[in-house]
Amino acid sequence: MKGLLTWWEGRCTASKVLRFVDYNLRGIGQVMFQDNPLSGLLFFIGIGWGSYAAGMPQVAIGGMVAIVVATFTAQWLRVDAADLGAGLYGYNAYLVGLALGTFLAVSPMWWVYVALGAAVSVPATLGTARVLKTWGVAALTAPFVLTTWLFLLATYAFSAIDGSGLPTSTAIVPIDPSAASALAFGDFVQGVLKSISQVFLKASLLAALLLLAGLAVNSLAAAAFALAGAIVSVITAHLLGAESDLITGGLMGFSPVLTAIALGAVFYTPSPRVAVYALVATVFTVIVQGAMNVALTPIGIPTLTGPFVLASWLFLLPRQHFGQA
Amino acid sequence: MKGLLTWWEGRCTASKVLRFVDYNLRGIGQVMFQDNPLSGLLFFIGIGWGSYAAGMPQVAIGGMVAIVVATFTAQWLRVDAADLGAGLYGYNAYLVGLALGTFLAVSPMWWVYVALGAAVSVPATLGTARVLKTWGVAALTAPFVLTTWLFLLATYAFSAIDGSGLPTSTAIVPIDPSAASALAFGDFVQGVLKSISQVFLKASLLAALLLLAGLAVNSLAAAAFALAGAIVSVITAHLLGAESDLITGGLMGFSPVLTAIALGAVFYTPSPRVAVYALVATVFTVIVQGAMNVALTPIGIPTLTGPFVLASWLFLLPRQHFGQA
Amino acid sequence: MKGLLTWWEGRCTASKVLRFVDYNLRGIGQVMFQDNPLSGLLFFIGIGWGSYAAGMPQVAIGGMVAIVVATFTAQWLRVDAADLGAGLYGYNAYLVGLALGTFLAVSPMWWVYVALGAAVSVPATLGTARVLKTWGVAALTAPFVLTTWLFLLATYAFSAIDGSGLPTSTAIVPIDPSAASALAFGDFVQGVLKSISQVFLKASLLAALLLLAGLAVNSLAAAAFALAGAIVSVITAHLLGAESDLITGGLMGFSPVLTAIALGAVFYTPSPRVAVYALVATVFTVIVQGAMNVALTPIGIPTLTGPFVLASWLFLLPRQHFGQA
Repeated sequence: MKGLLTWWEGRCTASKVLRFVDYNLRGIGQVMFQDNPLSGLLFFIGIGWGSYAAGMPQVAIGGMVAIVVATFTAQWLRVDAADLGAGLYGYNAYLVGLALGTFLAVSPMWWVYVALGAAVSVPATLGTARVLKTWGVAALTAPFVLTTWLFLLATYAFSAIDGSGLPTSTAIVPIDPSAASALAFGDFVQGVLKSISQVFLKASLLAALLLLAGLAVNSLAAAAFALAGAIVSVITAHLLGAESDLITGGLMGFSPVLTAIALGAVFYTPSPRVAVYALVATVFTVIVQGAMNVALTPIGIPTLTGPFVLASWLFLLPRQHFGQA
Repeated sequence: MKGLLTWWEGRCTASKVLRFVDYNLRGIGQVMFQDNPLSGLLFFIGIGWGSYAAGMPQVAIGGMVAIVVATFTAQWLRVDAADLGAGLYGYNAYLVGLALGTFLAVSPMWWVYVALGAAVSVPATLGTARVLKTWGVAALTAPFVLTTWLFLLATYAFSAIDGSGLPTSTAIVPIDPSAASALAFGDFVQGVLKSISQVFLKASLLAALLLLAGLAVNSLAAAAFALAGAIVSVITAHLLGAESDLITGGLMGFSPVLTAIALGAVFYTPSPRVAVYALVATVFTVIVQGAMNVALTPIGIPTLTGPFVLASWLFLLPRQHFGQA
Repeated sequence: MKGLLTWWEGRCTASKVLRFVDYNLRGIGQVMFQDNPLSGLLFFIGIGWGSYAAGMPQVAIGGMVAIVVATFTAQWLRVDAADLGAGLYGYNAYLVGLALGTFLAVSPMWWVYVALGAAVSVPATLGTARVLKTWGVAALTAPFVLTTWLFLLATYAFSAIDGSGLPTSTAIVPIDPSAASALAFGDFVQGVLKSISQVFLKASLLAALLLLAGLAVNSLAAAAFALAGAIVSVITAHLLGAESDLITGGLMGFSPVLTAIALGAVFYTPSPRVAVYALVATVFTVIVQGAMNVALTPIGIPTLTGPFVLASWLFLLPRQHFGQA
């Protein structure tokens, strides 16, 4: 693996085009915190497959267009070279593109919309990072969530953009208990794997396996926490009586998966104490996912990874209590 | 009084169990800013009575379970010993427990929910405090409000938790003027006292008197500002034409009571100028209470002490203009 | 022009009353970032005319009462003399007064409401400015937006305040495509000019011309960016298929106009690179305007200049990338 990366690094040093590709692959890798082009490539293939298999190639294409636009924008804005090289200006845009491809229909204006959303994600990332640096906390996917929420909400006001893929705005009613059925083993496995693939807005078992592989090539701990986070979230959501379709579709678990990786394997030094802390945070993220599903019902937009951002910020702010600066 | 506290302090030094009890009593006292175990005890008795009299023992029990869980959690997180000793990691959890007892029905999963909410309130407190330290402002009850809002919202999505005690999610319509009737003297007195007891989510005259006593044993100024704040809020709400039932039930006044104590007797050095400032802030908090009652109507959750937090932060940020560092 | 301002400065030095008038005129000027009493006077006349022509004198009167109350409040709070002299404690209050005059009916309690809103806008300004100083970003009109949102929301809860001028709270439905018709030249001109006058909540062509004149006497760049921002916003909103009535009424363009001035001519040193950045921010502000129109539909309040504040903060935070400290 190391040899492969060294060879690739050599190619990139020799070619500006390959360096640009490298930035974008690392950007895709950073969706799950991996500064590694091979992780990014495996994620990219997984999402491409999930997108193609679902008959929605515009998802993968939207992500690709967006990350390229964002990388150019970041260069134009003269961002820090090390951060750019680590893919930190790409992952939010990639998610913006995937989300606009998932919830909106393709039209001429859609392309402009994707490019503009990608471009805006860069100042959004710079701004969020600058504010949070005050307390030593990372922007996570907040720039993606904020930008995409605005672009999705606005589609209700604009007739040139078709948002018919968005959830319908309705009044809030308590869940019908019959929607929460017993958890069969097959549903459990599906829920676990799709919780991982839904991090990239796809419900695909093969994509999930490719994502796990992409994590494992760079960090076995990250892969382990992703899987553990998915298992914990599916069990928690089931015990709380969440809607079975949401659980099986991975829609209760993708934010908890990110929380588990972030707290367990990225921002804290792994230890039993950190693992317990990450576990509580992961369970809490399931509750935040439920809460935000409800809170956004009247305005007809999806939570995206908002629950992960909110829960992780809360659990990352007390960094000093885990020996972090 | 001083002798009693000295005797108690001696007992606590000799016994780890009593020291733990001391933390929790001070935590209850901190709901109204009093770092005094006797205040906490009087508050505890008042809430216990109010809870029992209303046929809802789960409220007081929820509060008790929550504060114990939070104190253990804070110790596990190795929080600052002085802050722990002052009860600063208990008051938010106590309120979380009272609120979950008030709005949710008891079930097996309810106990887990209370314990988890209490545990989460500790990182929420650490995180909020860390952010606000940048501007020398206290977390107030924001960790309670944020945590509880999330846990209450989520009940609509979870069939194992019964949130039938929550307000129904409805469309916003302007108040029917006939709902705002003349203010009889008996209603005025009830409104004033219940505005104080509703700080702990109870509508009880006896609880209100015990709360005032608990304030007075530690700070006569705090007791005076609580009473004055309650009177001002009831009159303001009445003049603005708020719903009479809300006024009489103390539901327009509990946040203004906290604003009055915080600004008038806790965070600023008392003076006529500070009293005028606290008066404006108290009146403003009544308007924020009205505003948040409206804003939360579509998502079916109560404001909790959100209006107090928002208004007080706004009036505490310009600290330098009152000679504060 | 310079001679006129020097003469006026001499009058103000000699008279406390004229100095007070000067503070307020500069405050009105600061709504569009102009620390110039002549700009303020032209804005004042424009709004007075627009208010009178629309048969709503209470708008201009509300603004006047509010700014006077705020200036007194700021003096009582002993704010920084230079900031007071530059009108920085007046512009938010002036907008609060205009907005309460626009959306609420006059009644005895309305006057109290306006005065209280104006008074609260001062600690809100101090507080917001203190927080944002951490990152070198200005408060913009956030204190106005926050204060007014709260005061408007609360009217649904208070029978002594008549909020029948507010938008009705409804469910969110996608725009009917027939509401977005072709853009005739006359509509284009109207949309552009009213986008400028709506910064002060008026749809008036004459007011727009006076506002442009008020900008030009202090900064030709500001006038140019205001006009360019209005043109860009009308075209963008039309291409996205926004509701024609909103575009023609200037209701899609007033926030983008402010973004264009702020980024193009106030907070960054003008350059081609800055102009491109301001263009992207202006287009983005149109999308934020659409998004906030939708998001606030269920709670029945207008966006005010919220879209300007959000978009501009996002694009101002990465200041260092434009050579700003």
